[in-house]
Amino acid sequence: MTIRNGGRGDVSADPLLQAVRDGVRIHDLGRQLTIGMPQSPNHPPFWHALPRRHGDMVRADGGSAANDIITMGTHVGTHIDAFAHVSQDGRLVDGSDALAAGSGGRFAELGAHTIAPMVRRGVLLDVPAALGSPEGCPAGYEITSGDLETTAAKQGTPITPGDVVLVRSGWGRHFGHPDRDVYIGRDSGVPGVGEAGATWLAAQGAHAAGADTIAFECLRPGSGHSVLPAHRVLLVERGVYIIETLDLEGLSAAQVYEFTFVLAPLAIFGATGSPVRPLAVVGRG
Amino acid sequence: MTIRNGGRGDVSADPLLQAVRDGVRIHDLGRQLTIGMPQSPNHPPFWHALPRRHGDMVRADGGSAANDIITMGTHVGTHIDAFAHVSQDGRLVDGSDALAAGSGGRFAELGAHTIAPMVRRGVLLDVPAALGSPEGCPAGYEITSGDLETTAAKQGTPITPGDVVLVRSGWGRHFGHPDRDVYIGRDSGVPGVGEAGATWLAAQGAHAAGADTIAFECLRPGSGHSVLPAHRVLLVERGVYIIETLDLEGLSAAQVYEFTFVLAPLAIFGATGSPVRPLAVVGRG
Amino acid sequence: MTIRNGGRGDVSADPLLQAVRDGVRIHDLGRQLTIGMPQSPNHPPFWHALPRRHGDMVRADGGSAANDIITMGTHVGTHIDAFAHVSQDGRLVDGSDALAAGSGGRFAELGAHTIAPMVRRGVLLDVPAALGSPEGCPAGYEITSGDLETTAAKQGTPITPGDVVLVRSGWGRHFGHPDRDVYIGRDSGVPGVGEAGATWLAAQGAHAAGADTIAFECLRPGSGHSVLPAHRVLLVERGVYIIETLDLEGLSAAQVYEFTFVLAPLAIFGATGSPVRPLAVVGRG
Amino acid sequence: MTIRNGGRGDVSADPLLQAVRDGVRIHDLGRQLTIGMPQSPNHPPFWHALPRRHGDMVRADGGSAANDIITMGTHVGTHIDAFAHVSQDGRLVDGSDALAAGSGGRFAELGAHTIAPMVRRGVLLDVPAALGSPEGCPAGYEITSGDLETTAAKQGTPITPGDVVLVRSGWGRHFGHPDRDVYIGRDSGVPGVGEAGATWLAAQGAHAAGADTIAFECLRPGSGHSVLPAHRVLLVERGVYIIETLDLEGLSAAQVYEFTFVLAPLAIFGATGSPVRPLAVVGRG
Repeated sequence: MTIRNGGRGDVSADPLLQAVRDGVRIHDLGRQLTIGMPQSPNHPPFWHALPRRHGDMVRADGGSAANDIITMGTHVGTHIDAFAHVSQDGRLVDGSDALAAGSGGRFAELGAHTIAPMVRRGVLLDVPAALGSPEGCPAGYEITSGDLETTAAKQGTPITPGDVVLVRSGWGRHFGHPDRDVYIGRDSGVPGVGEAGATWLAAQGAHAAGADTIAFECLRPGSGHSVLPAHRVLLVERGVYIIETLDLEGLSAAQVYEFTFVLAPLAIFGATGSPVRPLAVVGRG
Repeated sequence: MTIRNGGRGDVSADPLLQAVRDGVRIHDLGRQLTIGMPQSPNHPPFWHALPRRHGDMVRADGGSAANDIITMGTHVGTHIDAFAHVSQDGRLVDGSDALAAGSGGRFAELGAHTIAPMVRRGVLLDVPAALGSPEGCPAGYEITSGDLETTAAKQGTPITPGDVVLVRSGWGRHFGHPDRDVYIGRDSGVPGVGEAGATWLAAQGAHAAGADTIAFECLRPGSGHSVLPAHRVLLVERGVYIIETLDLEGLSAAQVYEFTFVLAPLAIFGATGSPVRPLAVVGRG
Repeated sequence: MTIRNGGRGDVSADPLLQAVRDGVRIHDLGRQLTIGMPQSPNHPPFWHALPRRHGDMVRADGGSAANDIITMGTHVGTHIDAFAHVSQDGRLVDGSDALAAGSGGRFAELGAHTIAPMVRRGVLLDVPAALGSPEGCPAGYEITSGDLETTAAKQGTPITPGDVVLVRSGWGRHFGHPDRDVYIGRDSGVPGVGEAGATWLAAQGAHAAGADTIAFECLRPGSGHSVLPAHRVLLVERGVYIIETLDLEGLSAAQVYEFTFVLAPLAIFGATGSPVRPLAVVGRG
Repeated sequence: MTIRNGGRGDVSADPLLQAVRDGVRIHDLGRQLTIGMPQSPNHPPFWHALPRRHGDMVRADGGSAANDIITMGTHVGTHIDAFAHVSQDGRLVDGSDALAAGSGGRFAELGAHTIAPMVRRGVLLDVPAALGSPEGCPAGYEITSGDLETTAAKQGTPITPGDVVLVRSGWGRHFGHPDRDVYIGRDSGVPGVGEAGATWLAAQGAHAAGADTIAFECLRPGSGHSVLPAHRVLLVERGVYIIETLDLEGLSAAQVYEFTFVLAPLAIFGATGSPVRPLAVVGRG
């Protein structure tokens, strides 16, 4: 959508607000949360119901309110992993004992509530576009550091420290498939970044890395989540957040490779992640 | 927090991104979601647990993942009301039949998934500061349209069409009270905007209106939610979103009255609202 | 298990209690509720976590309590259908308007809380044993009224009014299959009672009818739950409760065809069903 | 209710079934599960909604099914504590390490699924009736071992090994109070069995002990659940199950002190307890 607040004579002293007033285009990178959507079978599925519908309880003045109940994991829909999510050899990213860190049923130190909201430069690495694979990366394909480097170079969008880097594999086209197992891809495998690619992203100084798949990782056919090297590199060794199940199709179609990335996780105290609705925002220029 | 991506020679052609690179300050307007936090008793309470902690299941390579389960209503913590939330005389804001609109257990037309992400001018109306009540508005106090007008004038921040207007009553200071009933305020009453104030906000063209209380409304002592005129005016008659349980204390302390307001509700298909983590972002200027 | 309270000189005046004291054998007819167990995909899946484990919060005296959180539908695990569960042409079993009956988000009249606890004669109809199919009825097989009649006759256990009749198809052997879709049987079909069998059960005066499958019904391969005639006959037309996902393997192996059937649904106000743990109890004789 | 299956000529060889056929009276000892009912604030509250109501999705043949979603702890409504619920000095009743026992997010050894269904002699100890306090025991009153002994003697119902003993304090009359905090009784205190009474119950060989309060224990005014000696004695030291929030008013009014007690917990794998609907069943005699 394009927002224009124009026509006002005054000019804000805040260049950010001035840019917003001059009109911005918002690309929604989040998937809708719906019952039955594809998500990792390791997490409680998203469910929703209306305890009250309109008409159930009408006040004397004719007013009525409907409401909701939701149950879900946090790694559902488009979501971000907190550092508390993954440990290696019993340690979290800060070297703390991973078992002790979760004592009390919440991660007080590295939970989702500690993820600072992001308003940062974002870069889309549209790998299949750069590699000349309009159909997207094949199932099980490992996106290499060379692929990432080539894509950034072809696009003219080098990664700079602090950026959020969104890696498009093209797998997102399966999200709405009637058989949700297609997007989950356990049998087929799923394309994604492997250990080398994750290391490269961290080396560029990425603040967070995202993908258009559930697991971010390259998953070999039938292997499921038995090995997750990119999670280890990013969440445990290098302190880079991971964002999953992004919708990158719109950005790709619009050929928007650089933008203001906005993400505000729910501040769920002690959780290992949060569903999110990230935005790519572009000023008029 | 202040973010500086400076030191790069190139200058973006995107004024928004350029402003972000020049450094922005983010004010977090969301409350943490914690078990036992104050919320409306009309909605399923927020609960969270870790089905898996680190050590529960360690992979052969020494990796381990913890995860979450959450149950909640959508009107919990800091949250936004979708237009589907409230009806008057059996009708929603678009004139549709409110009962029929919820058929199937979701509001396909006016649910939370239809709330467009917001990147807009935001204005804080710090009512107690303007009225000279550093302790905040008293319990049960109705913030009048005159109060709002006076505050905007004193601050030098007139409302313009499309703005998001956040009305601070000062009640937010009770959010962390050990007795959560204090913030809920059923017995004491809660300060807030009444019908006249809501009408004024809509007349200024507000896109959304927020408050630092659970119900946004002025609640008289002991009356609970029996009458909610501001909801009727804003959600049903005028099509203005309502944001509740905001943390406006930081903005007030920093005397930031004008900013870029960012809000991206979870796209929960068919729900009557969504928990959110809104941001007030300020450029360097 | 066999319970013997014997050795006491006094004899109770209550013949039931006396029989209990003389020793009873309890056959557990319920399946364990576990994460990932087979259940109908139409209902929220069973999930469980421990918000608190021992050690999370230890009292000064060294005591500690662990607890749980559960989310689920009610038609999960072994469960009973309340009359509110199914309607036909907009009517429930008592002729009431089905839509109006659920107003307020609960069925005040025909919900699970209205199912009286059962302590009744129970009869197992071990169809595959009677028909000479030790492997169980084939996938998609419709158990006919003749099959039921033959089984009752061969066993020497005629149905009498008020009995609870449990129809074993043998499909229960798939419950623990590593691939839970096998027991759900969407592709293969599932054996069960059809319209004629249901009519026969009702004609015998059955108070409730049970099966060792999720849906009770005969499901044709690939057809899912598109037509459920036995539900219509039993729940809507004849007022016979349905119990599903029973474990009848133990009764069959022990060749116990007649017993005291005990079932106490959770009194979930207004729900359409309840998970249960039914028992078949046999006295010493 | 009284059930009579009479009129049949044949006489069962099973004395239990014969007693059932001769007619039994069932006293329902369970409370209804309703949104907002009184429960311990330490546990996730019971919530229920109908994701689908009749009319939401009508099949071609005119049939329609409604269903439910439930979230709750297990120590809600009338419920039983599994041995996994409480530890003392890091140990469970079997001497196992309490922290290790919950590893994986479930108690595989002492969880609710390990509670054998009960069909046993039950004894009601109607303490206030025996003590001449028709109004019930006062708030905060500790029911002593002497009280229990006196009650059993006056009633002529000595406890025998293996019995289930239900201790009525009279507090159950508050369950339906409009202010649910009255039954919870944090401020007022709640009557119940203390350490000495629990020791006495265990010494009589009770298999399980129940009460008409949430916590079973004697709670002093304002003290909450800071010390729970009866839980320690029964669940950790002596291996006696605890049943809470029972409805004992009907039994008391009918002066039924001895009966067949029936309880079948949901076999929730690894949970620390289960909501239940226990029955007291009485034969004709």
